[in-house]
Amino acid sequence: MSGKKQGLLLVLSAPSGCGKDTVLTEISAQMPIKRSVSMTTRAARPGERDGVDYYFADEAYFLKMLKEDKILEYTNYNGHYYGTPRTAVDEWLKNGETVVLKIEVEGAGNVRRLYPDSVSIFLVPPSMQILEARLRRRSSESEEEIQSRLTIARSEMQNAPQYDYIVVNDRLEDAVEDVRAIIRAEKHKSSRCGNQLSEVLHYAES
Amino acid sequence: MSGKKQGLLLVLSAPSGCGKDTVLTEISAQMPIKRSVSMTTRAARPGERDGVDYYFADEAYFLKMLKEDKILEYTNYNGHYYGTPRTAVDEWLKNGETVVLKIEVEGAGNVRRLYPDSVSIFLVPPSMQILEARLRRRSSESEEEIQSRLTIARSEMQNAPQYDYIVVNDRLEDAVEDVRAIIRAEKHKSSRCGNQLSEVLHYAES
Repeated sequence: MSGKKQGLLLVLSAPSGCGKDTVLTEISAQMPIKRSVSMTTRAARPGERDGVDYYFADEAYFLKMLKEDKILEYTNYNGHYYGTPRTAVDEWLKNGETVVLKIEVEGAGNVRRLYPDSVSIFLVPPSMQILEARLRRRSSESEEEIQSRLTIARSEMQNAPQYDYIVVNDRLEDAVEDVRAIIRAEKHKSSRCGNQLSEVLHYAES
Repeated sequence: MSGKKQGLLLVLSAPSGCGKDTVLTEISAQMPIKRSVSMTTRAARPGERDGVDYYFADEAYFLKMLKEDKILEYTNYNGHYYGTPRTAVDEWLKNGETVVLKIEVEGAGNVRRLYPDSVSIFLVPPSMQILEARLRRRSSESEEEIQSRLTIARSEMQNAPQYDYIVVNDRLEDAVEDVRAIIRAEKHKSSRCGNQLSEVLHYAES
């Protein structure tokens, strides 16, 4: 191998309640991916662990990181900051890893501009009714918060066409298989295979 | 469902001896695809069946079809015509089928221009040495023909970067899985999912 192949940067967005965490957890179990842990200033929900689901930080700390250029992208959503710490991502990509960023619509646009080779997937619910039901089952949120999330979801979904791929999360296994297929396919994009091709042809002359 | 989704047109090219027929046969066994049978003016090799591997035709008949605009794309390769009869392809696509065209490099360029939504895959051997060994095992051809095929293969592989994807046919199972992943992924391209998205959002208002 002549030089390590650059890793694949995958951006995954979805309206709240679409199951992106479940999809990602399942994919992590099936193939080696690196998941960037986002930093947020919102409060932890029951069961969420600091450093695993998110880094939970107060606003002062978040703004300090931002000022020091240690945040790759960030967005303010529903009154809270969400950002991707830059630290690990570039290192992982250099090592040829598949890196998955779970980020909001606005942040996704920023990553697309910073990493034109990145691949973006928008996960959608089978219907808005099902999304609403899923949000209610979660039960950690007030009616007001649920309505706010639904309004934001409708608005976010208008951005789906800007993503490279759209995956409907109806049956979990199908959505997982769809994302896995996208990762596998993208690694064969000819724009990423220049070195490989040279190697095949190079042997011809050796 | 509001209207049938347009099918996916997949173009598969590979230097002679790279195993594209084996890959396609395996994929056909695993998922529903429609394979266009090409028409050629070259002689049938032992074991090849008319109407299955190719339609074998004489030059006069081929040129008549061409004149009547019944050939979607064609090329002259090694002194013989190879073309794709137009008949079935458009009908299959209209019905939402996945249609696979096994065509030469020049023809692939023509299809890309005619069907900008088509997806193209170039299959390459792990190395030129292995390609040569595979061509020799085939044994139906003279040394001169083998050398001619190798020269053409090297030249064809220069066109690989114009294809959307490059798949190395080392282990057959891997190459088959790669092509299947590409088909699955491409069906989720956001550019093909406009209707689906409208449906999800439409339910929201109903």
